[in-house]
Amino acid sequence: MYEANSRNDALSVTRVFIAAELRGLPSHGMIRIKDYFQLWQAGRINVTPDIRIVHESPSTAVVDGDGAIGMIPATRSMEIAIEKAKTAGTGWVSTRNSNHFGIAGYYSMMALEHDMIGITLTIANPLVSPTWSVSRMLGTNPIAVAVPAGKYPPFVADFATTPIARGKLAIASKKGEKVPLGYVQDAEGIPSDDPDIIQRGGSMVTLGGTYEHGSHKGYCLSAIVDIFSAVLSGANFGPFCPPSVAYLPVKDEKVGEGTGHFFGAMRIDAFQNAETFKSQMDRWIETFRNAKPAKGHNRVLIPGDPEREKEEVIRKEGVKILPAIQKDLKEIADYFGIEFEMRD
Amino acid sequence: MYEANSRNDALSVTRVFIAAELRGLPSHGMIRIKDYFQLWQAGRINVTPDIRIVHESPSTAVVDGDGAIGMIPATRSMEIAIEKAKTAGTGWVSTRNSNHFGIAGYYSMMALEHDMIGITLTIANPLVSPTWSVSRMLGTNPIAVAVPAGKYPPFVADFATTPIARGKLAIASKKGEKVPLGYVQDAEGIPSDDPDIIQRGGSMVTLGGTYEHGSHKGYCLSAIVDIFSAVLSGANFGPFCPPSVAYLPVKDEKVGEGTGHFFGAMRIDAFQNAETFKSQMDRWIETFRNAKPAKGHNRVLIPGDPEREKEEVIRKEGVKILPAIQKDLKEIADYFGIEFEMRD
Repeated sequence: MYEANSRNDALSVTRVFIAAELRGLPSHGMIRIKDYFQLWQAGRINVTPDIRIVHESPSTAVVDGDGAIGMIPATRSMEIAIEKAKTAGTGWVSTRNSNHFGIAGYYSMMALEHDMIGITLTIANPLVSPTWSVSRMLGTNPIAVAVPAGKYPPFVADFATTPIARGKLAIASKKGEKVPLGYVQDAEGIPSDDPDIIQRGGSMVTLGGTYEHGSHKGYCLSAIVDIFSAVLSGANFGPFCPPSVAYLPVKDEKVGEGTGHFFGAMRIDAFQNAETFKSQMDRWIETFRNAKPAKGHNRVLIPGDPEREKEEVIRKEGVKILPAIQKDLKEIADYFGIEFEMRD
Repeated sequence: MYEANSRNDALSVTRVFIAAELRGLPSHGMIRIKDYFQLWQAGRINVTPDIRIVHESPSTAVVDGDGAIGMIPATRSMEIAIEKAKTAGTGWVSTRNSNHFGIAGYYSMMALEHDMIGITLTIANPLVSPTWSVSRMLGTNPIAVAVPAGKYPPFVADFATTPIARGKLAIASKKGEKVPLGYVQDAEGIPSDDPDIIQRGGSMVTLGGTYEHGSHKGYCLSAIVDIFSAVLSGANFGPFCPPSVAYLPVKDEKVGEGTGHFFGAMRIDAFQNAETFKSQMDRWIETFRNAKPAKGHNRVLIPGDPEREKEEVIRKEGVKILPAIQKDLKEIADYFGIEFEMRD
C-alpha cells in the first residue's frame, strides 16, 4: 500500500505523465507540467497534502485529496478501490478536493494486474452545454474502463463524453481550419464550424452532437460522470469545477471542495473463475476483431488498440518533446536550480 | 426479500409492463406480451424457473435466470444488489440465462426508495455494428442510472447506446419516410437514409453516428455494456445474444447461457450523509434546470423529466391500448381460457 512521502508523490505524477506520452496522448503529457507549475505558483496546488479517507464502508470510500495535484489522490484512490475489492469483491471511491489528474485510462489499468476490471470517471473544465442549452455546465467528462483478457492485450476504453477532445479545436484553430458541424455551437446554440467559438460565448456539445442524433444521451452520460465524481464526493460539480489552468480564475461561488473523480475496481473472481473469464474475453476480442470491415477499412479495432500500437512505436523511438515544451521545462528547472539539458 | 412463486413472478412482469406504459414507452409495454407468448410457445421461455445465485462475494453475485422471462431474474437480481449494498455499501449483480426484460430504468429506480443509486445495463438483439464494421455485433445496449434527490424528483437517465431506439426505424418505415443520415448504414458501411436497410444487410450505428463524430465512443460504451452483462455473467455476448422474438431463430453457436444483464446499487450513505447528498442533488438539479436555453427552446431538461411528465398525463388519462394489441391479448386470453373484454 502507498506510503505518503514526496518521492512517492513525485513518482505517481511522473508515471501518469509518462503513460500519456507513451500512449500517444501528449496533450495530457509533459505539455501540462507548466500548467501545474503555474497553478502551484498561484497557490492553487498543495504540494504537502494529507490525503485521507473521510467516509467508508466495506466496498466504498470518499477520499479527500487536500488540494493536491490530481495524480496523487487519484493513484491513492484507485489503490484503495483495489484493496477494498480484495475483501468485498468490488471497491468504489469517490474523490474530492483534487485537481486535474492526467489520463483517466492510467488509473483503470492499475486494476488489470490484480485480475480486476478498473473504472475511472472525472469531471473537467466546464466547456460543454447540456442538450438545448448554451450554458457551459459540464466538462469533457471522460470514462475509462479496463478489462483483463488472457492471451490478448486488455480491453481499454478511454473516451470523452463529447464528440471530440478539446485539443482538436486548438489544432484546427492553429491551422486556420474549420471544424465539422456537430462539435461546437455558438452563443445562441446554433451549430458552428468555428474552432474558436468557445472564446466568443460558444460551447462544446455532448456525444451525439445534436438532439436528433442523441446528444441528450451524451448529456446523460456526462451528467452521470459529474454526479458520481463530484456530488457523491462533495466536490464542485458541473459549472463549479475549478479550472485546471492558472490563467482562468477560480469561481467565487463554491458548492464543494476542489475537483472530483470516481474510481471502481471489480475483482473478476468475485463474479466467476478469473481464468475462464479471461479466456472468454479472448473469444470476445477474436469475435469483434473478425467483424467484417466497412468499405475503405481493412480492420475493426478493439478499444485500446490505437494507444497500444502507438506505445509500441514510441517505446522504440523514444518520447519526442517539442522544443517549446523543453524550453518550459528548462525554465521550471532553472526556477528550482535543477540541471536540465535541452536535446534535439 | 423476494419469495419465488408464480404470483410474485407474474407481479414482477406486470409491474415492468405497466411502468413502461406509464412512462410513455409503449414500445416496451403490452405490445411485447405477444412476443413473450410466442417465445413461450416455441419453448424458449421457462415459466417455472429456479433463479439462483451461482457465485458471490460480499458486494457481488452472478445470478442464473434459468431461462425465465427477463423481468423475473432482473427484479430478483436488483433485489440482491440492494441487499448486498445494505451491508457492503454497494451491490453488483451480473445475470445470465435471462431474456428480454422490458425497460432498464425500472430496475434502476428500485434502488431509489432505499436511498441508493441504481444502475442497470443489458444486452439486446444484435443489430448494431462497431465503428468501421458492417457486422451486426451489438444490441442497442441501454444504460439506466437513477439517483435520488431531496425535494425534487429523482435523476433518471435511461438511454440506448445508439443514436435512436430501433422503434424509430419501424415508425419511419410505416410512414414511408426516410431517416436522417447517422442512424443506419448499408451492407458496405455507407450511411443510409433507408429505415428498412437492416433487412437488406445494413445495420444500426453506435452513438456518435460516424467516426468523425465519435461513434467509436458509442462502440466503447456498447462494448462495456456487453462485457459487464454477458461476459462477466457467462451469457451469450455480442452477436450471440438470443433474439427476443420467436420469428428469429436461436443461433446454432452459443458462447454462454441466454441473455445477460448487469445491475448495481450504491448506498448513498456509504459515501456521505444521505440527506446532505440529496440536498446537494437538489442544488445540482436547480443549477442545470436554470441553464440558459438555446435559441428556439424554452427550458433545459433534467434526465427523467420527459418520462415523468408523460407519466403525470397518462396516470390521469389512463393507458391507451391500441385495438391491434387488445386483439393480441384477447387471442392469448382465449388460449388460456381467461375472460378478456375489448375496450374503446
